Amino acid sequence: MIITIKGNADQKQINNLLSWVDSMGLKTNLSVGEHSTIIGLVGDTTKVDIDLIRSLEIVEDVKRIQEPFKKANRKFHPEDTIVDVAGHKFGGGFFPVIAGPCSVESYDQVLYIAKEVKKSGATILRGGAFKPRTSPYAFQGLGEEGLDILVNVKKETGMPIVTELMSEDKIPLFKDVDIIQIGARNMQNFDLLKAVGRTDKPIVLKRGLSATMEEWLMSAEYVMSEGNSQVILCERGIRTYEHYTRNTLDLSAIPLLHEKTHLPIIVDPSHASGISRLVKPMSLAAVGSGCDGLMIEVHNDPPRALSDGAQSLRPDQFDDVMTVVKKLLPMVDKKLS
Amino acid sequence: MIITIKGNADQKQINNLLSWVDSMGLKTNLSVGEHSTIIGLVGDTTKVDIDLIRSLEIVEDVKRIQEPFKKANRKFHPEDTIVDVAGHKFGGGFFPVIAGPCSVESYDQVLYIAKEVKKSGATILRGGAFKPRTSPYAFQGLGEEGLDILVNVKKETGMPIVTELMSEDKIPLFKDVDIIQIGARNMQNFDLLKAVGRTDKPIVLKRGLSATMEEWLMSAEYVMSEGNSQVILCERGIRTYEHYTRNTLDLSAIPLLHEKTHLPIIVDPSHASGISRLVKPMSLAAVGSGCDGLMIEVHNDPPRALSDGAQSLRPDQFDDVMTVVKKLLPMVDKKLS
Amino acid sequence: MIITIKGNADQKQINNLLSWVDSMGLKTNLSVGEHSTIIGLVGDTTKVDIDLIRSLEIVEDVKRIQEPFKKANRKFHPEDTIVDVAGHKFGGGFFPVIAGPCSVESYDQVLYIAKEVKKSGATILRGGAFKPRTSPYAFQGLGEEGLDILVNVKKETGMPIVTELMSEDKIPLFKDVDIIQIGARNMQNFDLLKAVGRTDKPIVLKRGLSATMEEWLMSAEYVMSEGNSQVILCERGIRTYEHYTRNTLDLSAIPLLHEKTHLPIIVDPSHASGISRLVKPMSLAAVGSGCDGLMIEVHNDPPRALSDGAQSLRPDQFDDVMTVVKKLLPMVDKKLS
Amino acid sequence: MIITIKGNADQKQINNLLSWVDSMGLKTNLSVGEHSTIIGLVGDTTKVDIDLIRSLEIVEDVKRIQEPFKKANRKFHPEDTIVDVAGHKFGGGFFPVIAGPCSVESYDQVLYIAKEVKKSGATILRGGAFKPRTSPYAFQGLGEEGLDILVNVKKETGMPIVTELMSEDKIPLFKDVDIIQIGARNMQNFDLLKAVGRTDKPIVLKRGLSATMEEWLMSAEYVMSEGNSQVILCERGIRTYEHYTRNTLDLSAIPLLHEKTHLPIIVDPSHASGISRLVKPMSLAAVGSGCDGLMIEVHNDPPRALSDGAQSLRPDQFDDVMTVVKKLLPMVDKKLS
Repeated sequence: MIITIKGNADQKQINNLLSWVDSMGLKTNLSVGEHSTIIGLVGDTTKVDIDLIRSLEIVEDVKRIQEPFKKANRKFHPEDTIVDVAGHKFGGGFFPVIAGPCSVESYDQVLYIAKEVKKSGATILRGGAFKPRTSPYAFQGLGEEGLDILVNVKKETGMPIVTELMSEDKIPLFKDVDIIQIGARNMQNFDLLKAVGRTDKPIVLKRGLSATMEEWLMSAEYVMSEGNSQVILCERGIRTYEHYTRNTLDLSAIPLLHEKTHLPIIVDPSHASGISRLVKPMSLAAVGSGCDGLMIEVHNDPPRALSDGAQSLRPDQFDDVMTVVKKLLPMVDKKLS
Repeated sequence: MIITIKGNADQKQINNLLSWVDSMGLKTNLSVGEHSTIIGLVGDTTKVDIDLIRSLEIVEDVKRIQEPFKKANRKFHPEDTIVDVAGHKFGGGFFPVIAGPCSVESYDQVLYIAKEVKKSGATILRGGAFKPRTSPYAFQGLGEEGLDILVNVKKETGMPIVTELMSEDKIPLFKDVDIIQIGARNMQNFDLLKAVGRTDKPIVLKRGLSATMEEWLMSAEYVMSEGNSQVILCERGIRTYEHYTRNTLDLSAIPLLHEKTHLPIIVDPSHASGISRLVKPMSLAAVGSGCDGLMIEVHNDPPRALSDGAQSLRPDQFDDVMTVVKKLLPMVDKKLS
Repeated sequence: MIITIKGNADQKQINNLLSWVDSMGLKTNLSVGEHSTIIGLVGDTTKVDIDLIRSLEIVEDVKRIQEPFKKANRKFHPEDTIVDVAGHKFGGGFFPVIAGPCSVESYDQVLYIAKEVKKSGATILRGGAFKPRTSPYAFQGLGEEGLDILVNVKKETGMPIVTELMSEDKIPLFKDVDIIQIGARNMQNFDLLKAVGRTDKPIVLKRGLSATMEEWLMSAEYVMSEGNSQVILCERGIRTYEHYTRNTLDLSAIPLLHEKTHLPIIVDPSHASGISRLVKPMSLAAVGSGCDGLMIEVHNDPPRALSDGAQSLRPDQFDDVMTVVKKLLPMVDKKLS
Repeated sequence: MIITIKGNADQKQINNLLSWVDSMGLKTNLSVGEHSTIIGLVGDTTKVDIDLIRSLEIVEDVKRIQEPFKKANRKFHPEDTIVDVAGHKFGGGFFPVIAGPCSVESYDQVLYIAKEVKKSGATILRGGAFKPRTSPYAFQGLGEEGLDILVNVKKETGMPIVTELMSEDKIPLFKDVDIIQIGARNMQNFDLLKAVGRTDKPIVLKRGLSATMEEWLMSAEYVMSEGNSQVILCERGIRTYEHYTRNTLDLSAIPLLHEKTHLPIIVDPSHASGISRLVKPMSLAAVGSGCDGLMIEVHNDPPRALSDGAQSLRPDQFDDVMTVVKKLLPMVDKKLS
């Protein structure tokens, strides 16, 4: 951490700051210039409150040099984390594809889609039982009944399941769920992050609507700091000023995050654009960017879907995407899992 | 709602869409052009899934004409909602000032600050007991002990209190709290919104870090749809690309929201910039914009604060702000409450 | 165009608006609802000033249904535009790669790089002679001398050249340049757009730092409205709140623009992230997204480059990128040109 | 400038970097930690290419400590710059109000508006002769004829005039113009900035649509580095994801820029929202924020305006704004000029 002190600062105040820093067990490194003095903090600065330092009258600016995340940091864990879900691996060159309907509507619907996507190469089934909706008047998901449907389809097809959790008190209902998804709107619901950090299930952590990569990794850190290190990051588009697409899929985040963290990173191309015609090109682009898997919405009959129909593919369209994905994977040194 | 149909659309598919719309009890209005056909939907379209319509192959675009919020909509409730908290009113020309420390640290600290800000004209006391922090390693607040301190200071000073709720299971602890605050990161924690919608307490609903005004009003609608109409909106800065300030205080939201909704809107100038020197000018700017109150962080000794020290004023600085605020209020037809 | 009239609007004012619209040769379509009246405008609304209508007291909102661009609109020109540069084609399945140094430094430097990138499969040479720099104290390019170097290397290697034009008065100097580049910062320098619209040279039009796709297409429209229809759009990253990368490469723009316009769209992955390690994955991602070409910075000795070194590849790294690009192209039905 | 070196960096490469920095006349300050080495650069780093350093394989990150602007920097010029335009002063506690139509339409129109706004307290007349429009099909201004009208109204009323310049070759036409305005879209048209930097006229430099404060100050630096130090910054709203307003007026920029620079800063509340009903509250908010003047669009008959009608006030509405502005100014220690 680098603290820039104003040129007119009082020496006594500087000394106070130095002893305060010292009291936290950090070493300092002073460099006096003409218009400002610079203090470098050496040691573990993750607990230092950068805003507090910035508040001091004598401080002009503070910049963090060390990343504030530790358990998620590749610097301290150089090897890829591989998350294994019933034999399907995320990370380390493995590339699973998660597919399924946005919302669970009926057993027949989910079973039909599960069988179709499995034929095309998907290995994990997704489906929403609890749905976060912007409007209180929109369909909120089948809830517990939806979970039962997913579990029954899992039994029938052998596909592990992933579904979204929206509040801590529902965790007991998720005992047969294989991967818990934390949605974008809850990425900084810290109580929920801590709660899933105390489970032993892999977590798909979606990026918040306007979360920086650093905030996203700090949310992963919340889960990991409670003991659960099986976090799979999921890029799903960020909010920008553009309005032709619903969100802007940030694929440059993929190679950059691979440098910053050892956690696997998958891409959900369905939500980013909000337009099903864009799912295929964005899936191929995601493979090119080096991601560790895809999560794609598939629906038997998109127009009748109760939510997010616009972004769902039909099974035949999904099969078409998978055909090209399978050809591309070897060229980026990845294999389906 | 206006649906634009592609020029080459099949008449049968158009008819299917028309009957589907009809089945929802909405009237349609068709206008056939050279390159596209336009369908206008007349009636209550709040329950229509705009994404679902956009997904249809024949649809080029859909635009909502009617706002998707109803209970929060001024169109249907032209009169200002006035929220009364122990005699202090928000809305309708009344202007209360909420002040207090970012984090509750001790009884003495809170009592001292409460007495000071009361002298300067603040009527409601704020203080954080449960603190949402980006890092799991940062101080997370005193929790229940912090709530007790606030309640004791309330008894001593007579000032009603507002503090943040982060999860539904803590609601029973808030029985002596006068106003429940929902923080920016939980603005779309829909389960929490519904839960506080079932209480009888006024809610301060902070704007999400990158929430549109419409999403914000939809979150107010979540609370209101459960029966609680005492919602106070709180602008606290939005995320932009600018990095000299932490957030960009969006004051143009104030007069615009006053047109869209009957709910009172207050401004928190402390969090937007993250810099205490900006609190005074932004407080005066907020008054100029026509807001219905202010929420300001005040600390007895900012540098030692355990969180957000940078944005807190000392009591003497707060008094200086209040001196000017009091002079400005009559010029914008507002009075302290 | 759809105009929503306020519920309490005066009928006389509505009639005034209707006759004004009529005077522009547009037909109207009226739909009277309970809380608002909706007027649909039928005909060519590209010249209608949407802001002017919004200003009327009786108007609640106006939405454009028709896109405001015509010459660039695929609706009116369904076939792909193919821009031919000395036999190398952009669009229609062809995929040229443009490569070269960010800044022209010397004849030897440019010649060396040109030969290297040609060997790897690049067919068009790029290089900056006039450099737009944020700081007046940074190197501004060799100017006219740089142009001469490029032209000489073109003669030596046979590679057509593309370079940036920053002001109209320099156009005569560009007579031997094959493609004129308009940089992101000048995307809305309308006088410059009109000026290059009067030349007969292909234009690479970079997307502005925070330009919407619609504004970008309107800038293409400026060039085309002056008679020059050889416009190549170039996505180069947009400004977002993220700070780990310099810009966010918006690859979802590629398939979306392919629907909206018949113009070819290439991608510059070098500038988006500002980090050379990201150029390879983002190049592959761009191919996956379906773009019509790449523009990549290559430098013989990146650290000594006088500008943008961080984002340049060495020739061997560029060759590595091209090896994979060549394998991917057939899978997305494209061929090098 | 602080350079963070990767933990596994080669000592020889570090030495190369140190000697390169040394060759630029800068001193270095080395601090070796467990996971990284930090190099502090001491001296004038404004000419150091931060991107070039970031490109080095051994470099993990670089952060600028010193601001890259010098002439605009308050650190080196603590006193407010006061720009005097025919006796009306910007900065140092003076507060002129600029008013006039968005577009010049006719002599009678401009004269009428000029007389009206002068009565209400405006001292400088604005009006667009050359208009930057997103669409090539929209009205582009009266051009030279518009300039003549402005100059004639200036003669008649004695009000100095400000109008926008869009290209260098038009500068000779601006000889009777008192203040040259550089519009938001040309804020980084560096050739134009240098050109006006060689004139002796005050420059109103509007903030770019998504310019950071630092980029904006660097553009001021471009003008100043050519010898013209009479730069007036004009905040006019920035681009965000919000779509209820056209732009988001960034008033927190005002007090922050007052710390960073000695240049005067005015606010244009007309363009930010794009809605005339918001001009009054945002003007009052701007006064509260501490700005050094206002620029407001006024039109005799808003709905018939040829451009930006939506954001223009009628003279009686402008008078109403001025009535309150005049009352507020003494409370923020400003006086009309």
